[in-house]
Amino acid sequence: MTAVDPLATTLRSHLGGALRLAHNGQRVTLGGWVHKSRDLGGQLFIDLRDREGLVQLAFNPHWTAADVIAKAVGIGLECAVLVDGVVAPRPDGLKNPEMATGEIEVRVSDIRVVGPATTPAIPVALDKEAKRPSEDLRLRHRVLDLRRPELQRNLVLRHRLMQVTRNFLSAQGYLELETPILTKPTPEGARDFLVPSRMHAGEFFALPQSPQIYKQLFMCAGFDRYFQIARCFRDEDLRADRQLEFTQIDIEASFITREDIIAMAEGLMQALWAEAGIAVQTPFPRMSYAEAMERYGCDRPDLRYGLEIRDLTAAFRGSESGIIQSAIAAGGRVRGIVVPGAATWSRKQVDELEAIAKGAGAGGLVRLKLAEGKLEGPLAKFLPAEATSSLGLAEGDLLLAVAGADRISSPALDRVRQECAARLNLADPNRREFLWVLDFPMFDKDPETGALAAVHHPFTSPNTDDMASRPDAPETWRAFAYDCVLNGTELGGGSIRTSDPAVQARMFQLLGIGEPAEQERRFGFLLEGLRAGAPPHGGIAFGFDRIAMILSNAESLRDVIAFPKTTAARALFEGAPSQVPAQDLDELHICVQE
Amino acid sequence: MTAVDPLATTLRSHLGGALRLAHNGQRVTLGGWVHKSRDLGGQLFIDLRDREGLVQLAFNPHWTAADVIAKAVGIGLECAVLVDGVVAPRPDGLKNPEMATGEIEVRVSDIRVVGPATTPAIPVALDKEAKRPSEDLRLRHRVLDLRRPELQRNLVLRHRLMQVTRNFLSAQGYLELETPILTKPTPEGARDFLVPSRMHAGEFFALPQSPQIYKQLFMCAGFDRYFQIARCFRDEDLRADRQLEFTQIDIEASFITREDIIAMAEGLMQALWAEAGIAVQTPFPRMSYAEAMERYGCDRPDLRYGLEIRDLTAAFRGSESGIIQSAIAAGGRVRGIVVPGAATWSRKQVDELEAIAKGAGAGGLVRLKLAEGKLEGPLAKFLPAEATSSLGLAEGDLLLAVAGADRISSPALDRVRQECAARLNLADPNRREFLWVLDFPMFDKDPETGALAAVHHPFTSPNTDDMASRPDAPETWRAFAYDCVLNGTELGGGSIRTSDPAVQARMFQLLGIGEPAEQERRFGFLLEGLRAGAPPHGGIAFGFDRIAMILSNAESLRDVIAFPKTTAARALFEGAPSQVPAQDLDELHICVQE
Repeated sequence: MTAVDPLATTLRSHLGGALRLAHNGQRVTLGGWVHKSRDLGGQLFIDLRDREGLVQLAFNPHWTAADVIAKAVGIGLECAVLVDGVVAPRPDGLKNPEMATGEIEVRVSDIRVVGPATTPAIPVALDKEAKRPSEDLRLRHRVLDLRRPELQRNLVLRHRLMQVTRNFLSAQGYLELETPILTKPTPEGARDFLVPSRMHAGEFFALPQSPQIYKQLFMCAGFDRYFQIARCFRDEDLRADRQLEFTQIDIEASFITREDIIAMAEGLMQALWAEAGIAVQTPFPRMSYAEAMERYGCDRPDLRYGLEIRDLTAAFRGSESGIIQSAIAAGGRVRGIVVPGAATWSRKQVDELEAIAKGAGAGGLVRLKLAEGKLEGPLAKFLPAEATSSLGLAEGDLLLAVAGADRISSPALDRVRQECAARLNLADPNRREFLWVLDFPMFDKDPETGALAAVHHPFTSPNTDDMASRPDAPETWRAFAYDCVLNGTELGGGSIRTSDPAVQARMFQLLGIGEPAEQERRFGFLLEGLRAGAPPHGGIAFGFDRIAMILSNAESLRDVIAFPKTTAARALFEGAPSQVPAQDLDELHICVQE
Repeated sequence: MTAVDPLATTLRSHLGGALRLAHNGQRVTLGGWVHKSRDLGGQLFIDLRDREGLVQLAFNPHWTAADVIAKAVGIGLECAVLVDGVVAPRPDGLKNPEMATGEIEVRVSDIRVVGPATTPAIPVALDKEAKRPSEDLRLRHRVLDLRRPELQRNLVLRHRLMQVTRNFLSAQGYLELETPILTKPTPEGARDFLVPSRMHAGEFFALPQSPQIYKQLFMCAGFDRYFQIARCFRDEDLRADRQLEFTQIDIEASFITREDIIAMAEGLMQALWAEAGIAVQTPFPRMSYAEAMERYGCDRPDLRYGLEIRDLTAAFRGSESGIIQSAIAAGGRVRGIVVPGAATWSRKQVDELEAIAKGAGAGGLVRLKLAEGKLEGPLAKFLPAEATSSLGLAEGDLLLAVAGADRISSPALDRVRQECAARLNLADPNRREFLWVLDFPMFDKDPETGALAAVHHPFTSPNTDDMASRPDAPETWRAFAYDCVLNGTELGGGSIRTSDPAVQARMFQLLGIGEPAEQERRFGFLLEGLRAGAPPHGGIAFGFDRIAMILSNAESLRDVIAFPKTTAARALFEGAPSQVPAQDLDELHICVQE
């Protein structure tokens, strides 16, 4: 006798996928789905699938009544069944070492269909590599697709990651506090989902883009430490890696500095990766935003490979190229990356890289290569002889450079760098380069209008030293903001918040919301919280779907969300959104506008 | 040296409310709010409040610089401050045994305002019994109200109850699986919140009233055991104890019977009550719906007291009262309760009870009392002598009865019974009478039209024996549904679901949704799940807000929800719902209808 299966119920004694040789001789009742059926004429084998995996059911006249075999032969794939039988070792030679239950079979005495199934619209393939129907078809038949072991594993891991998150944060005194889903429309309203209500004609609730203001209010109210695995909403075009609704690990704490948040967040990442069986070293390296932009052209650099951006302005200063001269004269620089061994890339291959650079806004891509000791490329002849050595090219290297303002060259070189790394297969999927990017700028200044916009959000605290030393140059202020990056992907970000209501009002003013009345109308409930006496506070939010995706080795967020929306923002399985009776709209005091 | 405070940060060494005599002599830095300030001329005491409670700050020229005292005197109530000082025992005679920190004080060397506060609009009273401003005013200034220790305690307990729930269910193999908030509008659409989207003109998502269908689909997909602490939404008039959005513990399992769900649910209740320090015995008693209605007139009887309903028809059969005779002749009964010692109630008091009975639909309330051995009351003279003894009245008892159909007398006597118990103070708040009510009817039949409606919901399985033995009398079928009741309050309810798509289609037909096309349009995605091969499955949902309210001894759901809506369905603090710019509505392809 082995121990009782912890998932035993009044209807089943064991999970079939959990049976082992240790169960030999036990009489069992199993529940599951007919995964495969092989009729060998008189003998029948069914692979029964349940939450734990597959087990082989053996029907044989030696132990199964003829009418039961006859009944079993007729059971279609994916029917839900209950099965009585006895666990027995498989005959030698018929053991399957690739199956966890491969040493045993269940000799069936009875089988009953408890959930009849129509012919499955899509197969429930076990193999991750198996050819699968189109994603739209799988989303349309989501219940069948969710039976695939891969999706089952993903969602089980997601469950475990949620429990780890909560246990980790609870143990540190963080309180899970729920925030409303029906909230006030915000000024960033363009992305708000609005919700009419039958009780309030002409007025709307909004679904939260994040619980940002609420978590700050919890700090003002003295709860000290907050977290939530929070659903957030954005009504916007979906790129491949976005969803209308998404889940974030939302955290805020009081009487803290950036260092407290970073230490807590590193511990949380360590715990999450450990749950997926991966050891992570802390502390994570750090880099300022300025350095990240200078070296990688990007605020979330992938540090698994080099290809760092270099300032080549000095080398090109003597160049006779008019384009480069005018770029430098306009205050720009020449920056580029050296790609080892890429001198052999064809003109077409380099043209593709230039197209990428142009797609990111660059005017063109300077190309130079050192082949057989000779500098080659359209600009080679314009370069002064003494410049050649300072370019840092080794034999066989390809230099790709952009001349112009940093705001042009950075994104272009970032894209080019990533494409080169992909071509050269430099990003080892088994390496994990966590990184903190710190000291983001507080504001982004519109080059045309001069208007300031918050890079993080309006509630982020500017660097107080910057604010004191350069009070009249807010565009130069750094913010107390930080992002947690892994292999070029932003996992999460946060900041220390403004806790002084006067400073907050000043920030609104700088952002063009100068009128106190408008500040009250749009942000009154945050300002009231701050005016009630706000502690120093800050926090962070992690994209939980993305973390689950990374730790599942999934290719898409849709593979870690049970019922996702498509990139066309539709729920194919449910058939949502859908039209509703006119009367329902009347009750909500709204009408559809053509 | 004591251990490091687990909530220490780079800004504070300890929580002030956690300091004890064991910290004597320690240099501490605290963060918190100025709760009270007493200037005794030269000496100043401030009560500092933080998450753990209060601690006394002592400012005295012996250890505090004069400028620090001068600064401290000017700090207003509810300002957030950081404080440096040394823990010292209070002088004898000044200890306060009522405060957890009453043996010590912190001798302050410096204090800095880090979060200035305006004069609080409402006081942050410590005492639960303190006179409080109106609830609307407190909701308007929710951040200040949330600082009250009572609300802090409630939300901390709520946090703990959530963790207990998840740990309990996870340990039993239940998987926390998230369901969408943007779902398909349902046929019970009258209460759906509808959500337009800029991407889909004329089409709407709906916020879920519950994840009912999704959790059944998880079972169809083979996840076997599901739970979620799920947000649900109902756009309907709010009674005092409802919210537009509410939280339920949502559970579903496969290959189970009612007994599995009941055993799991009893364990969960036990774990939740234990977290609040209350031992609960299991198993809970059980009662059929029929018995509950017969004995208490109600499907969620409060078993802390008797006052059971008796069938008095036999005793009244010989009565000469025309009203009673015609009620009996129409197939009705005379049912009533005997209230011990209530013979002394005044006519006015009994009239009030009759008003309650009438308010619940009864035509009147028969009243009889036994005073000094004599039966008194308007009907006494009509009763045959032999009936008197069979009424079961003891000296001083009051009999209150209703003649008519059970569907009239049951709700009336339920209300009368509860009112009598309240008057007599029979419901001991320290007693906990858990109860399962089982075997609910499957359908409710409209007495006028004869139309059937689902008592639980359309996905509940009818009792299969009833269905087989009385196929043509669905109004007599019981359902495999169950409610968990505590002291007259429904904590949760659930059912075994229909897993056969043919039976489900039949149920829709009985509910008046006969057209296959309409079934598909309205319930297609559930039916597709069932047709994929559904296991026997069922579940339960508990009202988490209500459980948190009961275990907090709170008077209102609003006292266990951080940012609740009022009974007028408004978020007073945030100011939601609110009007939005016409342009936002244009983008959503909707307009406001006057």
